[in-house]
Amino acid sequence: MPEVAAYAVDSPTGDYHPTTITRREPGPTEVFFDIHYAGICHSDIHTARGEWGPITYPFVGGHEIAGVVSQVGSEVTKFKVGDRVGVGCFVDSCRECEMCRQGEEQFCTSRPGTVWTYNGVGRDGLPTNGGYSKGITVEQDYLIRVPDEVSLEHAAPLMCAGITTYNPLKRWGAGPGKRVGIVGMGGLGHMGVQFAAALGAETIVLGRTLAKRDDGLALGASDYVSTQDADAMKALRGSFDLILSTISDGIDLNAMLGLLKAHGVLVNVGLPQNSSTFDIGVLTGQARVLAGSNIGGIAETQAMLDFCAEHDLRPIVEVISADKINEAYENVVSSKVRYRYVIDASTI
Amino acid sequence: MPEVAAYAVDSPTGDYHPTTITRREPGPTEVFFDIHYAGICHSDIHTARGEWGPITYPFVGGHEIAGVVSQVGSEVTKFKVGDRVGVGCFVDSCRECEMCRQGEEQFCTSRPGTVWTYNGVGRDGLPTNGGYSKGITVEQDYLIRVPDEVSLEHAAPLMCAGITTYNPLKRWGAGPGKRVGIVGMGGLGHMGVQFAAALGAETIVLGRTLAKRDDGLALGASDYVSTQDADAMKALRGSFDLILSTISDGIDLNAMLGLLKAHGVLVNVGLPQNSSTFDIGVLTGQARVLAGSNIGGIAETQAMLDFCAEHDLRPIVEVISADKINEAYENVVSSKVRYRYVIDASTI
Repeated sequence: MPEVAAYAVDSPTGDYHPTTITRREPGPTEVFFDIHYAGICHSDIHTARGEWGPITYPFVGGHEIAGVVSQVGSEVTKFKVGDRVGVGCFVDSCRECEMCRQGEEQFCTSRPGTVWTYNGVGRDGLPTNGGYSKGITVEQDYLIRVPDEVSLEHAAPLMCAGITTYNPLKRWGAGPGKRVGIVGMGGLGHMGVQFAAALGAETIVLGRTLAKRDDGLALGASDYVSTQDADAMKALRGSFDLILSTISDGIDLNAMLGLLKAHGVLVNVGLPQNSSTFDIGVLTGQARVLAGSNIGGIAETQAMLDFCAEHDLRPIVEVISADKINEAYENVVSSKVRYRYVIDASTI
Repeated sequence: MPEVAAYAVDSPTGDYHPTTITRREPGPTEVFFDIHYAGICHSDIHTARGEWGPITYPFVGGHEIAGVVSQVGSEVTKFKVGDRVGVGCFVDSCRECEMCRQGEEQFCTSRPGTVWTYNGVGRDGLPTNGGYSKGITVEQDYLIRVPDEVSLEHAAPLMCAGITTYNPLKRWGAGPGKRVGIVGMGGLGHMGVQFAAALGAETIVLGRTLAKRDDGLALGASDYVSTQDADAMKALRGSFDLILSTISDGIDLNAMLGLLKAHGVLVNVGLPQNSSTFDIGVLTGQARVLAGSNIGGIAETQAMLDFCAEHDLRPIVEVISADKINEAYENVVSSKVRYRYVIDASTI
């Protein structure tokens, strides 16, 4: 069994510290790859701190993982040693249910269900550990190939932040002739802007302030509006085909829904900790839609990576050493990161 | 100018009483038809009582209207004297905006906008009056042809209750292999059950009580569950592709959304007077959808009537004389109607 160096946290209030974890020996259809980079997602923080429910400690976060294959099982056909690969939020599923057959493995309905990359339980009955580590064993069917045009430090955040924004924009029709709003200009939002613009939509960022306006415009937005600017918001009423909200808390649903045309769609990918209040009539009168979205399946994640290669899209990352994880968490929580921390796994 | 007998109300708390109103002489592209039946919709009551905002009195309700053409303008090509026709919630729109061109005249964005059948203002600058009257003048493009198979007293409620339920079921994919829930078994719900079943979906009524269970099953539902039955509701979790809610108040959004599969859709056609509270996470985790819907366009309303003729569907109506309108309103508000009151216009 490969022992690998990792960073783990031991309690909801603890700090990340160096440790060693055990990965399983690759089975016939499994791949072991050396992790080069692991992104820090806000979900890692919520999970590590027990904010989404109790978890088992020690906990190793990280579900935005990219690296290079160093070992393959005897029946592996899709990858070979030296291939550049990535893993996102899940590492296994049943492969047989309606959702898996539709390529929506993140909604697997049969045992073992979607096996999350961390805080899950694998087919082997063992807890899963995330990518803040030097290597990981994964079934070949749950690996993504990283195109040559995409560097590994940029590939890592795409595995969650990328697919989380790409999937709803594709599903709900972002494209030429459509006006798309992106709420929030963080790790997710700054990818959403790039995808919406590359898909051909007129893209407008709806940020709390205008602090990141220049970045938004540079990434493809045609305009950048402060949601606190009542006049600007009023001028946009009834004008959007699609709005993607990437923020967790503080979204004014009535105001956002009011920006949509008839049949317009507000998709939310955040997971607010508090309940939301709004007026259903804002949906009914104009047949508007309020949707949720949660990452995407393996095939679509691959398509997203390929789209990034084709359109030269990438996250803006700050590569950090592993001993900076705790500091980075604080900066993510206080929205100081621009726009994604990526851990250099050589420092683990 | 034709003077026609009508029933009007003079204040939010007033009773309907006989009166006379003026309809305009049909223009070149207009039709005047003798109203035979007018349905009583809950929207009539909300509007008459000022519950959806202040209105102008005297007010004549009724946007579920069916009758027989008695006069046509010189350029009318679509209808002739003697034709059986109906009018629903609107009587005009711009015909040129994106929405009108898409056959979604109910969301018209240019002047004059969607001209509602009552409490609106027509191109002539005059207030519109509804169908609790002996006749009405309407542009030919906003008239629906009533198929021979559908009687006029049944056609009337289809003009609103019919299209209101047919449109979202079609748009959101009710059909073979899909499990569809209908929340509420009233004027709208009892049509929703019939449409969902006729479209080939497995149809389950979600009623507050089981009082109307026999009717629901007779109309095509395969099951009828009380939303107050915690065990039954639990057993249905995560099992619906689509739920159509026809009730205005008292819907537990978290519970209803929890009944949906991943990507499942809850469509609401009610207009609650109070705000709703729910957890966005119930949408996000399973990529569920909460949508509103508001009637349908002219072409789809015609398709709905034709669908009713083809599948032998009709509302269950209680025909009343005009002097019973006030009493009928009380029975609608207290949910005593089964399932739609229709005024016999010969008694006006």
